[in-house]
Amino acid sequence: MTDRGHADRGYVDLGFARVDTDRAARTGDPEVVYAAGKTAEEVVAIVAALRADAPDRPALVTRAAPGTVAALTARWPDALVERSTVAVGPLLPPAGLVAVVSAGTSDEPVATEAATTLRVHGAGVVRVTDVGVAGLHRVLDVRPVLRDADVVVVVAGMEGALPSVVGGLVGTPVVAVPTSVGYGASFGGLSALLGMLNSCAPGVVVCNIDNGFGAGVFAARVARSIAAGRAE
Amino acid sequence: MTDRGHADRGYVDLGFARVDTDRAARTGDPEVVYAAGKTAEEVVAIVAALRADAPDRPALVTRAAPGTVAALTARWPDALVERSTVAVGPLLPPAGLVAVVSAGTSDEPVATEAATTLRVHGAGVVRVTDVGVAGLHRVLDVRPVLRDADVVVVVAGMEGALPSVVGGLVGTPVVAVPTSVGYGASFGGLSALLGMLNSCAPGVVVCNIDNGFGAGVFAARVARSIAAGRAE
Amino acid sequence: MTDRGHADRGYVDLGFARVDTDRAARTGDPEVVYAAGKTAEEVVAIVAALRADAPDRPALVTRAAPGTVAALTARWPDALVERSTVAVGPLLPPAGLVAVVSAGTSDEPVATEAATTLRVHGAGVVRVTDVGVAGLHRVLDVRPVLRDADVVVVVAGMEGALPSVVGGLVGTPVVAVPTSVGYGASFGGLSALLGMLNSCAPGVVVCNIDNGFGAGVFAARVARSIAAGRAE
Amino acid sequence: MTDRGHADRGYVDLGFARVDTDRAARTGDPEVVYAAGKTAEEVVAIVAALRADAPDRPALVTRAAPGTVAALTARWPDALVERSTVAVGPLLPPAGLVAVVSAGTSDEPVATEAATTLRVHGAGVVRVTDVGVAGLHRVLDVRPVLRDADVVVVVAGMEGALPSVVGGLVGTPVVAVPTSVGYGASFGGLSALLGMLNSCAPGVVVCNIDNGFGAGVFAARVARSIAAGRAE
Amino acid sequence: MTDRGHADRGYVDLGFARVDTDRAARTGDPEVVYAAGKTAEEVVAIVAALRADAPDRPALVTRAAPGTVAALTARWPDALVERSTVAVGPLLPPAGLVAVVSAGTSDEPVATEAATTLRVHGAGVVRVTDVGVAGLHRVLDVRPVLRDADVVVVVAGMEGALPSVVGGLVGTPVVAVPTSVGYGASFGGLSALLGMLNSCAPGVVVCNIDNGFGAGVFAARVARSIAAGRAE
Amino acid sequence: MTDRGHADRGYVDLGFARVDTDRAARTGDPEVVYAAGKTAEEVVAIVAALRADAPDRPALVTRAAPGTVAALTARWPDALVERSTVAVGPLLPPAGLVAVVSAGTSDEPVATEAATTLRVHGAGVVRVTDVGVAGLHRVLDVRPVLRDADVVVVVAGMEGALPSVVGGLVGTPVVAVPTSVGYGASFGGLSALLGMLNSCAPGVVVCNIDNGFGAGVFAARVARSIAAGRAE
Amino acid sequence: MTDRGHADRGYVDLGFARVDTDRAARTGDPEVVYAAGKTAEEVVAIVAALRADAPDRPALVTRAAPGTVAALTARWPDALVERSTVAVGPLLPPAGLVAVVSAGTSDEPVATEAATTLRVHGAGVVRVTDVGVAGLHRVLDVRPVLRDADVVVVVAGMEGALPSVVGGLVGTPVVAVPTSVGYGASFGGLSALLGMLNSCAPGVVVCNIDNGFGAGVFAARVARSIAAGRAE
Amino acid sequence: MTDRGHADRGYVDLGFARVDTDRAARTGDPEVVYAAGKTAEEVVAIVAALRADAPDRPALVTRAAPGTVAALTARWPDALVERSTVAVGPLLPPAGLVAVVSAGTSDEPVATEAATTLRVHGAGVVRVTDVGVAGLHRVLDVRPVLRDADVVVVVAGMEGALPSVVGGLVGTPVVAVPTSVGYGASFGGLSALLGMLNSCAPGVVVCNIDNGFGAGVFAARVARSIAAGRAE
Repeated sequence: MTDRGHADRGYVDLGFARVDTDRAARTGDPEVVYAAGKTAEEVVAIVAALRADAPDRPALVTRAAPGTVAALTARWPDALVERSTVAVGPLLPPAGLVAVVSAGTSDEPVATEAATTLRVHGAGVVRVTDVGVAGLHRVLDVRPVLRDADVVVVVAGMEGALPSVVGGLVGTPVVAVPTSVGYGASFGGLSALLGMLNSCAPGVVVCNIDNGFGAGVFAARVARSIAAGRAE
Repeated sequence: MTDRGHADRGYVDLGFARVDTDRAARTGDPEVVYAAGKTAEEVVAIVAALRADAPDRPALVTRAAPGTVAALTARWPDALVERSTVAVGPLLPPAGLVAVVSAGTSDEPVATEAATTLRVHGAGVVRVTDVGVAGLHRVLDVRPVLRDADVVVVVAGMEGALPSVVGGLVGTPVVAVPTSVGYGASFGGLSALLGMLNSCAPGVVVCNIDNGFGAGVFAARVARSIAAGRAE
Repeated sequence: MTDRGHADRGYVDLGFARVDTDRAARTGDPEVVYAAGKTAEEVVAIVAALRADAPDRPALVTRAAPGTVAALTARWPDALVERSTVAVGPLLPPAGLVAVVSAGTSDEPVATEAATTLRVHGAGVVRVTDVGVAGLHRVLDVRPVLRDADVVVVVAGMEGALPSVVGGLVGTPVVAVPTSVGYGASFGGLSALLGMLNSCAPGVVVCNIDNGFGAGVFAARVARSIAAGRAE
Repeated sequence: MTDRGHADRGYVDLGFARVDTDRAARTGDPEVVYAAGKTAEEVVAIVAALRADAPDRPALVTRAAPGTVAALTARWPDALVERSTVAVGPLLPPAGLVAVVSAGTSDEPVATEAATTLRVHGAGVVRVTDVGVAGLHRVLDVRPVLRDADVVVVVAGMEGALPSVVGGLVGTPVVAVPTSVGYGASFGGLSALLGMLNSCAPGVVVCNIDNGFGAGVFAARVARSIAAGRAE
Repeated sequence: MTDRGHADRGYVDLGFARVDTDRAARTGDPEVVYAAGKTAEEVVAIVAALRADAPDRPALVTRAAPGTVAALTARWPDALVERSTVAVGPLLPPAGLVAVVSAGTSDEPVATEAATTLRVHGAGVVRVTDVGVAGLHRVLDVRPVLRDADVVVVVAGMEGALPSVVGGLVGTPVVAVPTSVGYGASFGGLSALLGMLNSCAPGVVVCNIDNGFGAGVFAARVARSIAAGRAE
Repeated sequence: MTDRGHADRGYVDLGFARVDTDRAARTGDPEVVYAAGKTAEEVVAIVAALRADAPDRPALVTRAAPGTVAALTARWPDALVERSTVAVGPLLPPAGLVAVVSAGTSDEPVATEAATTLRVHGAGVVRVTDVGVAGLHRVLDVRPVLRDADVVVVVAGMEGALPSVVGGLVGTPVVAVPTSVGYGASFGGLSALLGMLNSCAPGVVVCNIDNGFGAGVFAARVARSIAAGRAE
Repeated sequence: MTDRGHADRGYVDLGFARVDTDRAARTGDPEVVYAAGKTAEEVVAIVAALRADAPDRPALVTRAAPGTVAALTARWPDALVERSTVAVGPLLPPAGLVAVVSAGTSDEPVATEAATTLRVHGAGVVRVTDVGVAGLHRVLDVRPVLRDADVVVVVAGMEGALPSVVGGLVGTPVVAVPTSVGYGASFGGLSALLGMLNSCAPGVVVCNIDNGFGAGVFAARVARSIAAGRAE
Repeated sequence: MTDRGHADRGYVDLGFARVDTDRAARTGDPEVVYAAGKTAEEVVAIVAALRADAPDRPALVTRAAPGTVAALTARWPDALVERSTVAVGPLLPPAGLVAVVSAGTSDEPVATEAATTLRVHGAGVVRVTDVGVAGLHRVLDVRPVLRDADVVVVVAGMEGALPSVVGGLVGTPVVAVPTSVGYGASFGGLSALLGMLNSCAPGVVVCNIDNGFGAGVFAARVARSIAAGRAE
């Protein structure tokens, strides 16, 4: 029903999807497929188009249902799988260093999404786990890790206070990710989101609730830029 | 327990429903049955009343559960079925042209509801799929399709930015449909809804979240009017 | 600090504003200046740039503060002023007919913004005032006006029920504008907005709260298209 | 762990519940058991205590899960069951007349809860079904029923406009019940609730979303009072 | 621009307003003018039309600004003025009895609006002031007043708990009016509104925030009906 | 219009107010007058009634407008005035110790309301000012003060993270008071309120936004109880 | 990937969790494991680390899924299990007395969480069940229990009015816990939460929705302090 | 009432404020004073303490009222003033380059706050003004500026769509700042905030509404890091 696109227009029209094959040239990032709301067949077809267009770059699939994960690993057995995140194709060597810090063990799935995204987007990662503000000595103890990173991604639910504390301790840029961990008046992560947006520590920026992916893309871009500066 | 209505009062009282048989005369539209919250038996009975009252016009059923779809196709084997939308009876020839544009493949069910509604309400349809604003060249590429349509229905979730971009590119009237595609602070489509209501492009009007049906009815009325003007 | 644009790029860069001089070519509409948050001097400068670029088309200023209205009429004494809406330049002859219907007298400022916008955007207008649903006979009485229009713009505050009633009475496309008229749980127009979005009458589309301007732009585009069809 | 109450204190302490056996004396109403969140055993025990305390009055159970309904009918086979509402014990003769009006067939479960509650609380009931405002002739047609009732209970979802229309047609007191029928920006009935609270028709009062029970209790009290006045 | 109505159509079209002169016949209530958003001149003109149409019935003006109050009393010196509420014309003799109960002295303006509305709508009134639940003995002390009334209007801000307590003490129908008294998380009366909608005492119905007028209209209708029953 | 109460009923009915003279006997607290929404004359009359009833106990007035403060000090020149909080009558000797901790200097008015309330309600107070979490060493430095108090009242706006940090550092009970300090997505203190309700540090309880008064009453009761235990 | 902590740093780093072994020294409380979002294996590992670090103190697990409860009781057969709350290790002798009061039987799970937490945190408990404000005589009857307690924890859903009533009856500090009991406009406990935050009875503090645990920790700290004072 | 801090503790205790003199050492940033809610005298005193502690670094004051701006410039005549933002002391030479892009002229105050903050925090700035998405050619035209910057700060109100478009055009990290520009359903910037949080373009991070300051601090840190890498 619609006119067909061509690869030299910067996309391939699969009928149900218009795959953006020009994205890497514009942004330097791998293409990403948001799998929620797509069938396993659709996701595999999109990834196949991306792999054919650029065999030397990875494609990242996020929010994949188990059936989609299975379909992807059936087709590409060497895919990197971390929970609902799947990377197909060769990874870039890591550039720069991002610390991914989580406030509690319940925040780990989101922190893992951030860390996997960072690796696929070409950044190095160091993980710091379970350093919530109710036991401050735990976060004070990892201050050197926070200071030495190029960027800190802070993942926290409930009241989302950890980015304020981290942002006050070090001058490293802080990317905060609220999670839906909590109950009652956490309202599915709204409380953590608002807390982070209102952080009294300047220099804290915020992503959508549970959006470890977005934090990873952003932090990787920054870390790669800093590393590129160093490499000049 | 209640007084019975008659067809010459403009409705038929089935006891559990008062079927509005006068609607076509008032509005020129086929009758529509909103199936959510009704049993399959109730829906079949309402459709049967409508078919008996006006055999030459289609009846449209929306938000039908699978059991209701099955009951409808058992009774009317030649019904048109698109996911949860079912049309029973002869379709009108298409008049005018509406472009149904979706921002991502996850928005397709809503775009399909709009397209099916348009066909049942007597309008022509052209589909444009997966032209989200993060890859602008895809939407710039279909500008001629948008310009030539009588109305554009734009379906988008997440931040709902596509109607603003389309509304700035062409002077065609834009009907925006926010979808519940997204997570976290999308709050079930609220983010897309607010984005569309606040569009900086003038001339964008908005429907309820996931309401492809409403957009289809409205756009079909406009397209038919324009075509009727042309036909004079 | 920024590179200067040129008129042949489709805009004029005034430093504090990048005036879109290409808009009429793209959309067929006059240029509009949203005056809220701009100084009177800025608004006058933008309008002057637009007048210079296209002397034969009107420019529309909305949400102008009294001082801005005064500055505009001082510069262009023959400007058309309706409350905070100002049109500078020659109007087009009206094409098509739009009925602007208000539920109560308190809704008049928004209805007037819609009507003025319609005239500036080249459509004919008929006004229907104070036909709220609590006295149904008033709206039933104007049914012929609603039926004969190409589009109906319905302006209502409080519970915003009038578009549902109008949308059930006639098949004319209905553009609903919620207003902030009300108090308490009207929450600044939110109640009317939600009511209109959830209208049980199909074919009702909605604008932002108090956005008579947006409704006018949209309805004018539709009315002009229908009239153009008739004129062929 | 707590001191035990006695019936002459106006309640019976079952340990897990303090059954208010004095309520009928204070309010003239039967006792009601809100079954959500209680086990079937708890509900049966509470009803048994109420039956023992006042064998000549009914007890009403609302929001009963199927297992609780089964347990109640196993113990009291002649209980009156309407969906999740169960009445145990002899009903009073009806006094006064309440019209229960629903906007759509999807609103029927709530309208039925109201009607059953009315009967158990001693009022007469007349039902009017499926008279939504998108087909006004249906509601205009039942005006005599609305006028002759002592109270009108209006049940509606989506935009909740029906109470405004009914409240403008007749002077009978209107009790509005918003339902959670709808989707998207209906936000679980919030849209209908706000619409009813902001009704432009004076004299409309509102209950909680889906609270047919509360509307029934209130309307029965009013209808009984009016009937008692007539009987003097 | 619009066709003129006639009084025998049930309204008078003043151009800026369509005055519903048929309302008294339909509902038995006096006509009411909601003055917010109308000029003093508009209000006076509407009231004059109503007075001319039905000299033997009062007209009620609510939410009048001081200038509007002045204009009304200049024209009708014997008008009844209570803060922003003005009644013009002869009052009916009171029928039935409504108790207007306020939780705190800050709630008095709303309680006064309810009481004035009741008197204008033909009901008798008894006032009970400042009986908040933090000093329960005050409300327990007035139980006889609550029990002897035909209806109780309960006006409360903050957490809005008083209707639940009153509704548990007596079987009189309770109309609850939340007020915007409070600060912080009262959110302009939202807290009181939600509290009243969720009252655990059955038989509590609710009006809009600060809507003493609406409660008065409703309660007067009920009280008049009960009194009319008694009078038969 | 209402029956008059008597002091031996536990209250004095002033007509516009029912002064609860029994409160001290029930709760051990002084009577408090919430002045918002009351005239200066009403407040003075209520305080006079309280002073007459119990000359040996203080009366506390909160949220007094400047005119009300002036009227109170004119009548009782030795009143204790702290911004909008006024205490009339002799203070009790302090018992126990409450630390009032504020996150920033903008939070001081609320912290002052808490401290004044504490003194009037018989507790000792120590103030700690401007120890926000963005400079953690400031709060770590006052740990001994926090540990030695019987209760800590923590006052903070923006993201409201300080109670979580304090609650993790010491085992002293923490009463958190969100303030409306902030802008944008602080939504008038909502962000701080939600943050405190979702605190990951157990044992944090919360008051209304800007409610230094409520925190003071609660903390004073606890501190007096602990001190009374010590004194036994 | 991160540097390992040591017990003498006040925590043990399990890789997926940093167990705060210093907490008892800082706060006097047992360590608590919030089990939601953690696997059964993770919870068992954390509890094992806590048991090894401090064999003489209990560890408390809250919000445990059935599988986690089973895993805990398999490992520690003498664990104390109350619904989803599990305590492992020896309990302290009770100090002080806390009354846990619930408004309805549906609130019992939250009241039980509070009571279990209190016992594990070393406080004595008395339970009062089902004393909602719609039957005031039930709560008036238990006034002595409320007065004799050191703290009252009040658990209520729906409109959350019980803390206001209790807070007005006695001077005992009141900790209010809103529950998600209710439907419609209770919005998952939001109505009860707002009601409690706006309580007109001074001295009411509030916890998160359904947070019986937090109320228990806070109340136990207060009760232990009061008892410690008495013991001096 | 509190123990005094000393400069060697990293702060100076002024009584009403605890000035964090250690911040520059920890974060590399100048100290910032949030002036809202502080008196002019308090702000001057804090700035004086900061100037005395570190004469070679600037101090930044944000959200200063006109009186505070006057007091600051009276004391430090060479202060840099941009609307409500004031910088006192010598600026650092710029490192790196940040593009500050605004969607409309009404967004300029927030863009200016970001730009001033960037300069004070040591970063270079390029401004791009009025490139809203309704005239896409304007933003396409400045693509080279966006691509060459180290970071892009995008400032937009209404639907907040510009960051999505920018984020899809270039791989430069995007920091989005929603503004309160808009009306009706923009809800004070909420619509723009939600739109940006839900951006379909990966790698967009978000600040609080109108928080140009926070975006400036964050972007300056990143730009300085990248420039430092280049300088190695």
